[in-house]
Amino acid sequence: MTVMDLNSDVGESFGNWSMGDDAAIFRSVSSANVACGFHAGDPSVMAQTCRDAAAAGVTVGAHVAYRDLAGFGRRFLDCSPTELADDVLYQMGALDAVARSAGTAVRYVKPHGALYNTIAHHEAHAQAVVDAVAAFGGDLPLLLLPGSVALEKAERAGLRGVAEAFADRGYTPDGRLVSRREPGAVLHDAAEVTRRMIRLAEDGTLTAVDGSTVRIAAQSICVHGDTPGSAAMAAEVRRGLEDAGVTIRSFA
Amino acid sequence: MTVMDLNSDVGESFGNWSMGDDAAIFRSVSSANVACGFHAGDPSVMAQTCRDAAAAGVTVGAHVAYRDLAGFGRRFLDCSPTELADDVLYQMGALDAVARSAGTAVRYVKPHGALYNTIAHHEAHAQAVVDAVAAFGGDLPLLLLPGSVALEKAERAGLRGVAEAFADRGYTPDGRLVSRREPGAVLHDAAEVTRRMIRLAEDGTLTAVDGSTVRIAAQSICVHGDTPGSAAMAAEVRRGLEDAGVTIRSFA
Amino acid sequence: MTVMDLNSDVGESFGNWSMGDDAAIFRSVSSANVACGFHAGDPSVMAQTCRDAAAAGVTVGAHVAYRDLAGFGRRFLDCSPTELADDVLYQMGALDAVARSAGTAVRYVKPHGALYNTIAHHEAHAQAVVDAVAAFGGDLPLLLLPGSVALEKAERAGLRGVAEAFADRGYTPDGRLVSRREPGAVLHDAAEVTRRMIRLAEDGTLTAVDGSTVRIAAQSICVHGDTPGSAAMAAEVRRGLEDAGVTIRSFA
Amino acid sequence: MTVMDLNSDVGESFGNWSMGDDAAIFRSVSSANVACGFHAGDPSVMAQTCRDAAAAGVTVGAHVAYRDLAGFGRRFLDCSPTELADDVLYQMGALDAVARSAGTAVRYVKPHGALYNTIAHHEAHAQAVVDAVAAFGGDLPLLLLPGSVALEKAERAGLRGVAEAFADRGYTPDGRLVSRREPGAVLHDAAEVTRRMIRLAEDGTLTAVDGSTVRIAAQSICVHGDTPGSAAMAAEVRRGLEDAGVTIRSFA
Repeated sequence: MTVMDLNSDVGESFGNWSMGDDAAIFRSVSSANVACGFHAGDPSVMAQTCRDAAAAGVTVGAHVAYRDLAGFGRRFLDCSPTELADDVLYQMGALDAVARSAGTAVRYVKPHGALYNTIAHHEAHAQAVVDAVAAFGGDLPLLLLPGSVALEKAERAGLRGVAEAFADRGYTPDGRLVSRREPGAVLHDAAEVTRRMIRLAEDGTLTAVDGSTVRIAAQSICVHGDTPGSAAMAAEVRRGLEDAGVTIRSFA
Repeated sequence: MTVMDLNSDVGESFGNWSMGDDAAIFRSVSSANVACGFHAGDPSVMAQTCRDAAAAGVTVGAHVAYRDLAGFGRRFLDCSPTELADDVLYQMGALDAVARSAGTAVRYVKPHGALYNTIAHHEAHAQAVVDAVAAFGGDLPLLLLPGSVALEKAERAGLRGVAEAFADRGYTPDGRLVSRREPGAVLHDAAEVTRRMIRLAEDGTLTAVDGSTVRIAAQSICVHGDTPGSAAMAAEVRRGLEDAGVTIRSFA
Repeated sequence: MTVMDLNSDVGESFGNWSMGDDAAIFRSVSSANVACGFHAGDPSVMAQTCRDAAAAGVTVGAHVAYRDLAGFGRRFLDCSPTELADDVLYQMGALDAVARSAGTAVRYVKPHGALYNTIAHHEAHAQAVVDAVAAFGGDLPLLLLPGSVALEKAERAGLRGVAEAFADRGYTPDGRLVSRREPGAVLHDAAEVTRRMIRLAEDGTLTAVDGSTVRIAAQSICVHGDTPGSAAMAAEVRRGLEDAGVTIRSFA
Repeated sequence: MTVMDLNSDVGESFGNWSMGDDAAIFRSVSSANVACGFHAGDPSVMAQTCRDAAAAGVTVGAHVAYRDLAGFGRRFLDCSPTELADDVLYQMGALDAVARSAGTAVRYVKPHGALYNTIAHHEAHAQAVVDAVAAFGGDLPLLLLPGSVALEKAERAGLRGVAEAFADRGYTPDGRLVSRREPGAVLHDAAEVTRRMIRLAEDGTLTAVDGSTVRIAAQSICVHGDTPGSAAMAAEVRRGLEDAGVTIRSFA
């Protein structure tokens, strides 16, 4: 049986500001990356998001970030490894308490935005995130970029690192994301995206931007719900995968 | 055997700003009210504070507050009960994760500042705090002002409400704190304070500001470490209680 | 010649979060209440909003608020009058620098949300806002609720208080807003709203919720751009007023 | 007549947290770098600091920073140049309004902490700071590290860049600060520091860490008030300079 996880960012509203179509996303994904208040999300948004995830049977992950509400966690912050580890642990605990009161719990961790990208190469920040997840307990897996330095560090710490693919992104022949400054970086055709993700789920390969075949060792596919049409694409990817016989189930 | 708890606020530094002599306080108290980041404390301050509490054998409580760093949680914030309950749950979870990684855990909850005073009479905010503590699980006790509306609500929710006395405060004949605008509100003589607390521990009474005897049903005594001389007074109160044969032990 | 001001809240986006259709609103109003970063708006949102206001020939006002991003400034915060005055002055200065670099300047002040409502009756907070506006210099007018305590205090301080009406709200026979818990609080029919505002501009009266005629001494009409249809209603009100021969011009 | 400026950071308290001995510093310096709320300082702290500066006849500068209260502005934040320029302009305007109501005004700009260090070499952030100062108007000078990229950019923009020396720091033979990881980085002897600063004021040279003579083109000397003994050293430096016939006067 072929199994694949679909994950998406949710709970990114804050106070009076709304973001994303979480209700639609919860119908498509198996894993939900829930913002923890440092880049988005406030305690009430988090609570509602966890209740919705629990009701939809979607697994909750902590979408931990640099402390940067004004920048939505998309700006590198040169904090110390200790500060970073403590910030991550704080976010995990806060979300877990909220999730437990909603009948679920934090089952994995996905770093967000600049933190996600930074720990692909920044040794000290990668180690800090891994340390925090280890300190939290429960051996939670980390959802990461393939090739991320944090993947190795997670495994060295006895934690599971889970690599993900991006449904709507083009890949280079060596398995990296095409830069957003290059053509082919973002795919807009839902049917094409769905065909690609079925192939990825079935044999672990994708067609790279130059037409060659590239192997992507992904156990999860990231979809979006925050731009026009993205939730619809997520729904189509799920439907396509299920029609192709792929079971959608969280890795966690 | 006579038993009494001594509690104090700790972990009230934030980033580059220090506050209080926590090292001294940890030598005197049995229960530490640890700030959770909403009025004071940041994740790294919280982590260090929990490690210090664990090393000193002091019980950790969550010092939950309104979201008001600029006002140190001393200003009433007219949030909705839902917002308040979610904010409290968030703070409890954040501190608990940090505490657990330090080898301890959150064992009770003490509302801070304006929240502490507000829920003495504000029905909806009192209920919100109680709801959050109940939702957190583990039946944690709440440390509160004697007569607080939140005490009743805690007990109605099946939680334990623990009333506290303030070592350095004068009391009215009906068991209330003398207003800070009145003479006799704050006591400065450590020997007198110690004698009063021994009597309180032994027979549950104090001399009120008018010379009459007042009964205070306190299971904990609050001492301070954030003003000159306060940590020394806390040490003297502890020594005096122990010399009088009182066992200092957390209620939690 | 009959003259009326139309004002609306703008610049209420923050970081990655958008709010309101400011571009549409700038085509309808003569005065723009620009958020200053305490309840909404960040420096870059403020800068873009001021450039857009300048380009549209719309007068800029400082939409000052309690320090409460999580609550969008809609929650009463029991700060001291000194804190409030300093917070208001800070916001005015910040916006004015941004506005001047955009070729305009702060020409009036409108308190936002909970602050707006609070200073209708809270003497100390009303005085604090007036003190801040006086301290800023330039004798800027304050845009306020008719009957607001702050109106009197502004005038006593030698400042101009400008009362406003709400285009889409029902009024009681004594000139107050119908409570949102009562029927008739909010009007949804743009044609009716437009007729009411023409009458208000021409003879200073409205039909109250009980059918009687009520006099409203308003020099500005508040319209909205943050809900579906509200920007369209604002456009219709402006067109209706202009077609009726009313000149739309800021009071400031 | 030999003239020198002495500058120091002030107004770094926040809410309930105090920092530094500003009262002592105001007796020693001619220029005060006042925190603007992004790394330290709140509106009330800023107001009190400006009143104290005005009373002491000390010139006020805007100590602008990255938005990072938790990190005291000491952490690089990879914001966009537009965000940075807008953040700087916001801080300048906020402080200027507060300063004007205290009878003074912002007369120069000194970037703080990580921003100060970053714009010594980061072209885009240096340009953003210069752009903000230019946009503010009034041709305010910038107080910077000798050799800072921002110095050139300031001059290219028609603004005055003022280089400063650090009283208590050792210098390399090529005029750079000795790294804090090396011996000789920080000088603790007030008499030695004073002798060095007199020589710097009189002939623009210092003895480098290797004993050679190095020329430092400084128009201001930075002293501190936030560590034990630092305010006393500042006082001694001032007294020594005055006794040597140097006039202490702000560059601005």
